[in-house]
Amino acid sequence: MRIPKGPPGKIRMILHPVGVVRSPLRRRRDAPRQGREGAPDAWLEIAPRYGRALEGIVAGDEILVITWLDRARRDVLSVRPRSDPVNPMSGVFATRSPDRPNPLGLHPVVVREVEGTRLRVGPIEALDGTPVVDLKPALR
Amino acid sequence: MRIPKGPPGKIRMILHPVGVVRSPLRRRRDAPRQGREGAPDAWLEIAPRYGRALEGIVAGDEILVITWLDRARRDVLSVRPRSDPVNPMSGVFATRSPDRPNPLGLHPVVVREVEGTRLRVGPIEALDGTPVVDLKPALR
Repeated sequence: MRIPKGPPGKIRMILHPVGVVRSPLRRRRDAPRQGREGAPDAWLEIAPRYGRALEGIVAGDEILVITWLDRARRDVLSVRPRSDPVNPMSGVFATRSPDRPNPLGLHPVVVREVEGTRLRVGPIEALDGTPVVDLKPALR
Repeated sequence: MRIPKGPPGKIRMILHPVGVVRSPLRRRRDAPRQGREGAPDAWLEIAPRYGRALEGIVAGDEILVITWLDRARRDVLSVRPRSDPVNPMSGVFATRSPDRPNPLGLHPVVVREVEGTRLRVGPIEALDGTPVVDLKPALR
């Protein structure tokens, strides 16, 4: 694994995909706004070279999945929360909108099953094909 | 704001810093392992061009700060949790180690004060100079 090298004094913040979401949700309009609003389970297919990083994760664990929301817009700074015209405009940092300068998704899920370097987790509103960039234990 | 363009079919997952942490913590060995273990408050200096994205965040809010842990190692897949030799080796995805393939820091904090595009938040264990990449409402 390479540590990215940039010009001295300049940080290159490049994410490496560690895996991908495999979900029945294919289009943004099919996805609920949050995992707990009727989202399905999905498989996280982690690349085998990151397998050692999964050691210790077992069925029943509550974890946070961090994704790169590759279908989001990065040039949006204000939204109406939940796209409801009744809501006043709000800064995206005060909301969970996928549209934001760095479209990171944060998904609290339960691990249902571990099969090699594949994890079945849910409920999760991420779309099929969404890159996974990190997994962390749930916040306590 | 530019939407990064890459070769067709290839996603470039490049984070843009939206701000920086200003903290009395200067070195990794000075930082507690988690914010709730005696960490200080810090200022988040958000770049003025992202000011609109902060609208709606007020003192007292519980938020999540996502940082890029620029002093972490990306080539570490297993660690002893809390560097305690009593603990067995564990995959980094099962831990909060800053050393991980994509060194994203996730910091639950309380907003103490908002001053233009600067937010005083805490407690937070991030080091001075750490790039901020996203802010989100706390998970419920």
